Amino acid sequence: MKKQGVNVGIVGYGTVGAGTAKILLRKQKDLERKLGFPVVLRRIADLDTKRDRGVKLPAGVLINDAKALLHDPEIDIVVELMGGIHPAKEFILEAIGNGKHVVTANKALLATEGRDIFKAARKNGVDVGFEASVAGSIPIIKVVRESLIGNNIRSISGIINGTSNYILTKMTEEGVDFSATLKEAQALGYAEADPTFDIEGIDSAHKLTILASLSFGIPFSFKKIYTEGITKITPLDIQFASEFGYRIKLLAIAKQDGNNIEMRVHPTMLPKDHLIASVNGVFNAIYIEGDSIGPHLYYGKGAGEMPTGSAVVSDIADIARSIKTSAGSITGVNIPENPDLKIKKMEDIRTCYYLRFSALDKPGVLSRISGILGGRDISIKSMIQKGRKIEKAVPLVMMTHEAREKDMAQALKEIDRLSVVSGKTVYLRVEGGED
Amino acid sequence: MKKQGVNVGIVGYGTVGAGTAKILLRKQKDLERKLGFPVVLRRIADLDTKRDRGVKLPAGVLINDAKALLHDPEIDIVVELMGGIHPAKEFILEAIGNGKHVVTANKALLATEGRDIFKAARKNGVDVGFEASVAGSIPIIKVVRESLIGNNIRSISGIINGTSNYILTKMTEEGVDFSATLKEAQALGYAEADPTFDIEGIDSAHKLTILASLSFGIPFSFKKIYTEGITKITPLDIQFASEFGYRIKLLAIAKQDGNNIEMRVHPTMLPKDHLIASVNGVFNAIYIEGDSIGPHLYYGKGAGEMPTGSAVVSDIADIARSIKTSAGSITGVNIPENPDLKIKKMEDIRTCYYLRFSALDKPGVLSRISGILGGRDISIKSMIQKGRKIEKAVPLVMMTHEAREKDMAQALKEIDRLSVVSGKTVYLRVEGGED
Repeated sequence: MKKQGVNVGIVGYGTVGAGTAKILLRKQKDLERKLGFPVVLRRIADLDTKRDRGVKLPAGVLINDAKALLHDPEIDIVVELMGGIHPAKEFILEAIGNGKHVVTANKALLATEGRDIFKAARKNGVDVGFEASVAGSIPIIKVVRESLIGNNIRSISGIINGTSNYILTKMTEEGVDFSATLKEAQALGYAEADPTFDIEGIDSAHKLTILASLSFGIPFSFKKIYTEGITKITPLDIQFASEFGYRIKLLAIAKQDGNNIEMRVHPTMLPKDHLIASVNGVFNAIYIEGDSIGPHLYYGKGAGEMPTGSAVVSDIADIARSIKTSAGSITGVNIPENPDLKIKKMEDIRTCYYLRFSALDKPGVLSRISGILGGRDISIKSMIQKGRKIEKAVPLVMMTHEAREKDMAQALKEIDRLSVVSGKTVYLRVEGGED
Repeated sequence: MKKQGVNVGIVGYGTVGAGTAKILLRKQKDLERKLGFPVVLRRIADLDTKRDRGVKLPAGVLINDAKALLHDPEIDIVVELMGGIHPAKEFILEAIGNGKHVVTANKALLATEGRDIFKAARKNGVDVGFEASVAGSIPIIKVVRESLIGNNIRSISGIINGTSNYILTKMTEEGVDFSATLKEAQALGYAEADPTFDIEGIDSAHKLTILASLSFGIPFSFKKIYTEGITKITPLDIQFASEFGYRIKLLAIAKQDGNNIEMRVHPTMLPKDHLIASVNGVFNAIYIEGDSIGPHLYYGKGAGEMPTGSAVVSDIADIARSIKTSAGSITGVNIPENPDLKIKKMEDIRTCYYLRFSALDKPGVLSRISGILGGRDISIKSMIQKGRKIEKAVPLVMMTHEAREKDMAQALKEIDRLSVVSGKTVYLRVEGGED
């Protein structure tokens, strides 16, 4: 008898696994109505088969043997939701080798080992869905690959890490410093016990690797992304940013400039009226500029059981549709590359800067600082000096016009050596201004 | 020899036709790199073959005989961009009858005659793409059908008519009245010579017909949508709205409440900090709430040569992919319906209201008005009375808590009959409040 539905096996029964299972089970009828055939959750494999995830699974669905799932001839789609690099990669390759389509939410794995996975999938004629790997519920992968296919994407930038955005939002609203806010976020479950990936920008860089590849056709290049986290952001700089009309956000930015692609993750000052500036808390948002569409904004939850589960289920549905109508879609594994592209060096990027000097309030200090900046072709747009304390260090804050990163680095090195400057100069890059 | 590419014919060489042609021609190589095969613009049919559209077409592409295009055996996808109901419908049915896939941007046609078209497409095993029919460049059709498949959509509301949003934005920024702003918009090309569809909410209702059908599974029901335009909006009400912390937008709203679907288009007051409230000018935005994703926002250009052309090309690419991989995708023509749903009567909806009475400033007036409201179970949230002119009519403005539309209509009828009330009471519905 010919099988009527499409069978799914999930490896990894954590938060997203539970969300995915809930949607597949609770919306079984809706999915069948929308697709025209049933999608059946056949197996979930996890070492922990005891913990209550708030889902009532049919008997026999939950097993502790991932290998059995990967080799189950009845399973059409393997959903990898265990996270980490190993053995997730091996499991996925094994599933692909067995002719199974794969859905994964594993951005770290794709950003670092994605090429091997897509290569194996192409060889075996199966699909790989990864909508849930970037920005949780926001369907940015599908949008970039399918909806914006008639565009040369000029830039893509976004808040794609909810934890760091939650921390920056709290710091902005309450004026509390970074480490206290991080502790609070950990207590509330918004930050993990080891928050390194989130607060150091690594998670954002993983996601940017995937987005930039799809947007521009640059090969996956996680290691070449300039990555700077939010640990050095202070309430003082948030306050000064606000006085200049800006908010500080951890942005992942990729831009095309001729054949050069610039990719960077760092705390960024954005004008308060920019669409992304008011994206607060754990929400994500992605701002895209395409040559046909102009600007687009996508906003939604970037993490969580049900939002990310929703993205996983959309991939399952797409692949299930293609299983029922054809021998295999070409969307999932065709990551077209443009061989002409190069990655721009960080030192060559041009942007506006916010600078906070700890300068002695003495005559001549400003002229020495601005002289060094001017000598490197950096011109000042505006300036604030707060709290005059003669002969003591006070913050001297400047916004510059667009300058080259290399020139700025050299100028700051020189300025920080001045005897009238105490302590390292703080600098932040600015996006979304006119200049 | 087996044909390598997919051939496209466009019927209607106006604004969107020109944008589509530009993208197909100028991005031919990019599209081939992304898709893995070429998409070829084989023919464009239009009665006017002389006017310069800023596109250099290869010789022989532009013809004046639509029938020849519809019957060209080399053409795989017919793109209908002529607009209007007839002969667009007949052309589309003829193309479908000839086994051709169809892409259309024609919301008026789909909203009123869509069922016939989808039925014919199902019968002939061809696809119908209509991404460009709602919100121009914003890929809301694909998002609702594919990306959010794991959600029960609770509500979808949006600014989906750029002309009316441009007019309301101008009225808000400059305090000018409706008819002067309309004239300016017409002079600038943002409003058509006959602006009825845009300013009366009809275009929004066409689009809402499509969105609500895809979101909830309610059959296309354009005629049952409550539709009210922006012609009666005054600078005075915009000003009062602002004092209460609101902006006025023409919203298309669809909500599910059990098995009841509520659908309406009308000027709506939104709190200033709502994501949609700051969508200005010709931009569109759609706000969706799904049970898995929570809130989503999509923002972009809702019209124009290149933005809408981009949406048309995304449909062409999707169908081309499915032609190359299978006998036909089932996404395009499967508009699943839920037979349990009913459309809620407008008189049964519940919402908060803004009321502006022209009341004589006499003792007892407020108690009479509030007495009538209270008798219909309508309670007042806040009130402003401006400019005391004893014995003359002054505006008395109120915001109410949630009330039933039917009760409000009856209360206002009664209030407008009072001798102390001169002129018809103005009322606006409010969304996005907490109540």
